[in-house]
Amino acid sequence: MQSLLHSCYGINENGHLTIGGLDTIDLARTYGTPAYVMDEDFIRGMCRMYKSAFADSFGAASAPVYAGKAFCCKEIYRIMAEEGMAADCVSPGELYTANAAGYPMQNAYFHGNNKTDADLRYAISLGVGHIVVDSEEELKALSIIAGEMGVTQKILLRITPGIDPHTHKKIITGNVDSKFGSAIVTGQAQKIVAEALNTPHIVLDGLHCHVGSQIFDFEPFADAADIMIAFLAKLYSEYCVSFPILNIGGGFGVRYTEDDPEIDYVANVRALGEKIDAQCKKSGIKKPAIMMEPGRSIVAASGITLYTVGSVKEIPGFRNYVSIDGGMPDNPRYALYQSRYTIVAAEKANLKPNYPCTIAGRCCESGDLIAEDAMIAPVNRGDILAVLVTGAYNYSMASNYNRLPKPPVIMVSAGKARVAVRRETYEDVAALDN
Amino acid sequence: MQSLLHSCYGINENGHLTIGGLDTIDLARTYGTPAYVMDEDFIRGMCRMYKSAFADSFGAASAPVYAGKAFCCKEIYRIMAEEGMAADCVSPGELYTANAAGYPMQNAYFHGNNKTDADLRYAISLGVGHIVVDSEEELKALSIIAGEMGVTQKILLRITPGIDPHTHKKIITGNVDSKFGSAIVTGQAQKIVAEALNTPHIVLDGLHCHVGSQIFDFEPFADAADIMIAFLAKLYSEYCVSFPILNIGGGFGVRYTEDDPEIDYVANVRALGEKIDAQCKKSGIKKPAIMMEPGRSIVAASGITLYTVGSVKEIPGFRNYVSIDGGMPDNPRYALYQSRYTIVAAEKANLKPNYPCTIAGRCCESGDLIAEDAMIAPVNRGDILAVLVTGAYNYSMASNYNRLPKPPVIMVSAGKARVAVRRETYEDVAALDN
Repeated sequence: MQSLLHSCYGINENGHLTIGGLDTIDLARTYGTPAYVMDEDFIRGMCRMYKSAFADSFGAASAPVYAGKAFCCKEIYRIMAEEGMAADCVSPGELYTANAAGYPMQNAYFHGNNKTDADLRYAISLGVGHIVVDSEEELKALSIIAGEMGVTQKILLRITPGIDPHTHKKIITGNVDSKFGSAIVTGQAQKIVAEALNTPHIVLDGLHCHVGSQIFDFEPFADAADIMIAFLAKLYSEYCVSFPILNIGGGFGVRYTEDDPEIDYVANVRALGEKIDAQCKKSGIKKPAIMMEPGRSIVAASGITLYTVGSVKEIPGFRNYVSIDGGMPDNPRYALYQSRYTIVAAEKANLKPNYPCTIAGRCCESGDLIAEDAMIAPVNRGDILAVLVTGAYNYSMASNYNRLPKPPVIMVSAGKARVAVRRETYEDVAALDN
Repeated sequence: MQSLLHSCYGINENGHLTIGGLDTIDLARTYGTPAYVMDEDFIRGMCRMYKSAFADSFGAASAPVYAGKAFCCKEIYRIMAEEGMAADCVSPGELYTANAAGYPMQNAYFHGNNKTDADLRYAISLGVGHIVVDSEEELKALSIIAGEMGVTQKILLRITPGIDPHTHKKIITGNVDSKFGSAIVTGQAQKIVAEALNTPHIVLDGLHCHVGSQIFDFEPFADAADIMIAFLAKLYSEYCVSFPILNIGGGFGVRYTEDDPEIDYVANVRALGEKIDAQCKKSGIKKPAIMMEPGRSIVAASGITLYTVGSVKEIPGFRNYVSIDGGMPDNPRYALYQSRYTIVAAEKANLKPNYPCTIAGRCCESGDLIAEDAMIAPVNRGDILAVLVTGAYNYSMASNYNRLPKPPVIMVSAGKARVAVRRETYEDVAALDN
């Protein structure tokens, strides 16, 4: 029997894989395959965990900000609104979606290394709370647009602290050399802060940074906070300014396979909070409201993808290929990053997985694989496979490569399933064609 | 001045880049950015070149088969229908699109390593000429479905010849170890041929193979044809069967940068034809109709993508980032394959490109880059950049990552531009959300 990694997955009396208590074979029969299935209760649980841990360890003014790029649709913004989560939106499309879902836009942060004038105008028109300004060009453009629109726009500035999240070393070249933000070490961060302080129609509410992703402990965040707090202290001493917000970005890791470590988010937030308290005390600055931007860690484990097996091809002396009715269009993470996944024969989840195989997608492209080292119970054409931990960066990255329609997103809560995003049809895929 | 690589690109009296004779700055102003622009006349020219070269070198019954996965929309199938091109469709979505465009489906070949029962039913219902069967499971499923639908379906069988296109070595493990088809060397190819000959509701019309992509000379195709013809001779001697079609797949290369070689397609087809004639003679088999499946080489060079610059970020001691209003969602090829492109400051196409920079997409992802070694004329926020040779595997692979809408496809012909695929809106992107 495989380890199922996360509490939202289980095995029922028929030996079938379950998600949120529902039988995945039933779900596949009802909604067809391929299909994403997500456990809403798990998502809400993660939001509550973060809110409570932040309040306890960072203080009442602090807040987790859901990074919608991990998974974006109207339904997730409704959930985030109900859970009182702030939202990190990275494009006008994400802003549109949040707004269309009735999300309170004053709680949204608008990110991105390249916002067009039209994007800035759109964000202001929606009443977006904060725009996270990335460059001097954007600062200038925003000031002009805010002036034209007769508003004063609150902003954060994106700063590059220069941290490598996997070595914890500070001022690593690779992280100063980034398309995002302004680096402290080059003096560009201080320059843009000074400019922002003198730019009309703008209120600089604080700083933002981001160190990386799939980070399994608090140390890189503490290192980043250390650098950012020292920078805040320098700004205070030189300009006599202090800012209400310090956003140290996202990146907490998620367990995709048994080889990934387990992570205690609450304990990490607590340890980070203690470090930040000590850093603020040492630097002599008033602690700002601490924000972080979890995305993957809120939604990834909540989701699975269900596929139907089409063929099992055994090449003597080489390997076994199990072909599924989806692939890189619905999950490009193996093709892009060689990301590893845990795969379960959904009808035989209680059997020992003893069949080594490569899980191949259905695209006419050799690189369309989902896993090259899977170990599953033996399957045949028509069987259902579940790929676990696909709730983040799967639907949001999905393409129509090979003109394959995007799968639906089925949301499960309190033992009931509903369609959060409907299945795309061939008509939909060709709808823009003249 | 940069080399513009292909005949459809030029520079006009204002120093602006042109495509199909039209000013790219005017096109950007009229249609907005990001936008794909494709030269229809160039595409038609490539089709005619292939048709004529195939007729001359492979014989009258031979045919180039357009591989729609390179670029798929209704308009391209209308063009292919008018040019009398056969079509390689790899999914029900491509079949839908071709059929909706009025393409004659008897000229379509339906490919793919995993066709579902529903897909097979759909293909038969549309009257698809040939189904290229990939596996034993598919052969069985197709026979049952064709029987139920009361038809006899013509098929090809996908065979793995075992060729490495870049070393020209035969029986390379890497190419027997494939999710596609049945290998000759393992005996599986002969087994599935024997099965297909005895399967009801099926007519086996020939064999199909595919050796790779970005191939700049005819040798790997000749090697594959050699193996396939020897296999056909063996089948003739053992089963006394001969087949009307041998499809040796796609893969002719395209010049993306000055470092790629130039390729004379006609000369390569001629040399390949001579080899095939000699191989058939030597093997003592009647030459089948030779088919190949050009996709990239028909559309890639016809297309460019126009972007607007958002920021130019110079990091002293590191590098310069030029951010554009698109990126990996409209062109994932750098993120996926580190594919190289030629990039032109469209308003300054006659200037010497002397500004080294990394072209960064607008996604909230560090890996969202289009080129890391670009050399362009200096640009500022608001300037137009053109990425050349994006007609293949750009629109067809586009995603909505970060909820970015897909750019439109503008088709240029005889000095006039029209919208072939309209720009996606935010409403479109969220249209499937409940």
